Amino acid sequence: MSVLSSRSRYAGNPIEEEDRVADRLAMQGKKIIKLNRGDPAVYFRTPEYIINAYKQALEAGNTHYVDHLGIPELREAVVDRYRRVYGLKTNAEKVVVTQGVSEALLMLNFAVINEGENAIIFKPYFPIYPPYLEIFGGKPIFERYDEANEWNVDTDGLERSLKRYGKSKRIKYLLVTNPNNPTGTVLSKSILEEIVGLANEHKLLLISDEVYDELVFGHAKFTSMCQLAKGMPYMILNGASKNFDATGFRVGFAMMPGEDKTSNMIMNKFRDFAQMRLCANSPGQYAMAAAMNNVSEHKKAIKSMLAEMEIRVKFATKLINESRYMHAVEPKGAFYIFPKVSFEKLRIRSDRKFVDELLREEDVQVTRGSGFGGDGHIRIVSLAPKEILETAIDRINRFCSRHAK
Amino acid sequence: MSVLSSRSRYAGNPIEEEDRVADRLAMQGKKIIKLNRGDPAVYFRTPEYIINAYKQALEAGNTHYVDHLGIPELREAVVDRYRRVYGLKTNAEKVVVTQGVSEALLMLNFAVINEGENAIIFKPYFPIYPPYLEIFGGKPIFERYDEANEWNVDTDGLERSLKRYGKSKRIKYLLVTNPNNPTGTVLSKSILEEIVGLANEHKLLLISDEVYDELVFGHAKFTSMCQLAKGMPYMILNGASKNFDATGFRVGFAMMPGEDKTSNMIMNKFRDFAQMRLCANSPGQYAMAAAMNNVSEHKKAIKSMLAEMEIRVKFATKLINESRYMHAVEPKGAFYIFPKVSFEKLRIRSDRKFVDELLREEDVQVTRGSGFGGDGHIRIVSLAPKEILETAIDRINRFCSRHAK
Repeated sequence: MSVLSSRSRYAGNPIEEEDRVADRLAMQGKKIIKLNRGDPAVYFRTPEYIINAYKQALEAGNTHYVDHLGIPELREAVVDRYRRVYGLKTNAEKVVVTQGVSEALLMLNFAVINEGENAIIFKPYFPIYPPYLEIFGGKPIFERYDEANEWNVDTDGLERSLKRYGKSKRIKYLLVTNPNNPTGTVLSKSILEEIVGLANEHKLLLISDEVYDELVFGHAKFTSMCQLAKGMPYMILNGASKNFDATGFRVGFAMMPGEDKTSNMIMNKFRDFAQMRLCANSPGQYAMAAAMNNVSEHKKAIKSMLAEMEIRVKFATKLINESRYMHAVEPKGAFYIFPKVSFEKLRIRSDRKFVDELLREEDVQVTRGSGFGGDGHIRIVSLAPKEILETAIDRINRFCSRHAK
Repeated sequence: MSVLSSRSRYAGNPIEEEDRVADRLAMQGKKIIKLNRGDPAVYFRTPEYIINAYKQALEAGNTHYVDHLGIPELREAVVDRYRRVYGLKTNAEKVVVTQGVSEALLMLNFAVINEGENAIIFKPYFPIYPPYLEIFGGKPIFERYDEANEWNVDTDGLERSLKRYGKSKRIKYLLVTNPNNPTGTVLSKSILEEIVGLANEHKLLLISDEVYDELVFGHAKFTSMCQLAKGMPYMILNGASKNFDATGFRVGFAMMPGEDKTSNMIMNKFRDFAQMRLCANSPGQYAMAAAMNNVSEHKKAIKSMLAEMEIRVKFATKLINESRYMHAVEPKGAFYIFPKVSFEKLRIRSDRKFVDELLREEDVQVTRGSGFGGDGHIRIVSLAPKEILETAIDRINRFCSRHAK
């Protein structure tokens, strides 16, 4: 009898796989530039009004367990936000507060995936989508975001695949990330409409991870799945982490506004699972409710943070595209850059080796593209101040020159 | 193709299954006495020094993601606590911070359970032990705590069962709860030694849920598994919720001090899983580290809380044992009472119907014993002030009289 489960081989997250190496280097006195974790709260203080609400919750004694579904104040705040921002009519029954989007992914796959069943995930993907599916016996079917077309969904390819699969695959859901991590793409309304149409035609549950929905640059226009997917089962994932700059709170939510039987069945299973872990961080939920309800303070906070994010992302993208060794599609949102590395010019063969040696030789930690299903790329989190980003990219260039053919 | 996974039927928690009924009654203006959730922070304010540390973490900007394994300060604080209190020599590598003990149970079963494999759980059990096993395809083997012997482990029964099973069952772990929820039993050193001996003999991983380890009354003596299980793989589960009166923080930990290969393999899988959900509540971890490190403040806080808990539990136990309809073994720790209901005197046949009708007729919410694998009992959380406990027990008696044969 083996000690471990066979499923346990699927767990992990490439974003953090070099953390222990980085720790050891730091202990040797090296100063590591960490561009691996997408964490705005490292560089932008969580807004004061949110911190104050959190402190008030602590002072008011809101440190006990709360409703496993989430506090009513937060679930109502979610409903209000979606009505205000996207014109969605729904109610708090359709919202379950989760321990971050990651727990929502856990609950989703727990609820719907049987051994051997499938889900459609687009490459490059947020690295925890496949393992949360695979630990429950699911098998990802990879479709693609097309780098040649600004990392948009290849909807023609998707349509062909769905026709080809027919009933040969048991596809439980189709998951899109908008705005995208790691590419920064913001999907257009027309592409989303095509996806909704295909999901409808093939009776696929649509999952939309919209955790960066307010982090959109310039003239790019974000469309929420809730504006297009009417009268069909779909789920939106979102949370405090990115828009509200509060990653460490571990407060997210899953919302499934449909009144159909499928939506109700799945939400019921989210509720059952939620009972098992009692509740999410309770004082953090009060802070998150205040964060969403105080519209004017939030607007102020996100305006200045987003302006600075855009400056940093554009600055780093420009430097990357001036490099002889990298090329990146300019992101329209979020704070990631996903450059293709010109491995044909290098003696290093894989992105895994690239990031590992870059860390050891240049004290810069980025994430390998293969961890996102995007071999030959690296992901650079572009939240640090310009001078740090510049130093990091200089070092990446120096590293590439040293290892050039 | 079914909408739901077959595993999803296992999720749930009987402690909370009546919450929506209670909500509806409350909305009708009823004042429900809720004795279902074991939540000290509802009745005892989380100590001021912990709240202050939490607020300081927020003010210091510790709102970002932290290490997926937990902040070093907290993992060191855990190591220090176990050295100080139990003389254990271990190190922070052996500790993974979890989102409560519930997440540690999730990680455990994720890591070791394959379809059809078994774990030994004693009845009556904390209700989420079986579902976290079952959602990963595991099958519980139930052994028993013996009510006639003050709910102690029936070690003779356990020994007979283990011999009988031989290799016919694939038993991955044996899980004990000490002090116990729902019975309040504190296991003696000699019984624990027998369990350790049997686990050693049959090569079973020992899991000890010790989340109430400081909540022990009078002359009862608690022994931690780490004092007895030397040179073998074992895991201890604990956290902020009960001893530190901070249930809503969602900060717990799993510790596996063994240097053996099995311990290392399992801890590695905890680490891999931990990466996937990024981290536990970060400011809460700083608060928890301070809570554990400030020994003198903690001693003061727990002394007064525990004294009051003991008064309330003894008071309620006495009232219960004066009832014509209930009998309870007096708890030696924690804050639960698990009386046997004299169903032979009642027209109500099941504990499920009993708690449901009690809630609707008398506005008192308790949990059915069958949810703990203890049919014919109910669990009463005895944290409320005496007058509320008295009212509740009066109402239970009135309810029983009304439904007497």
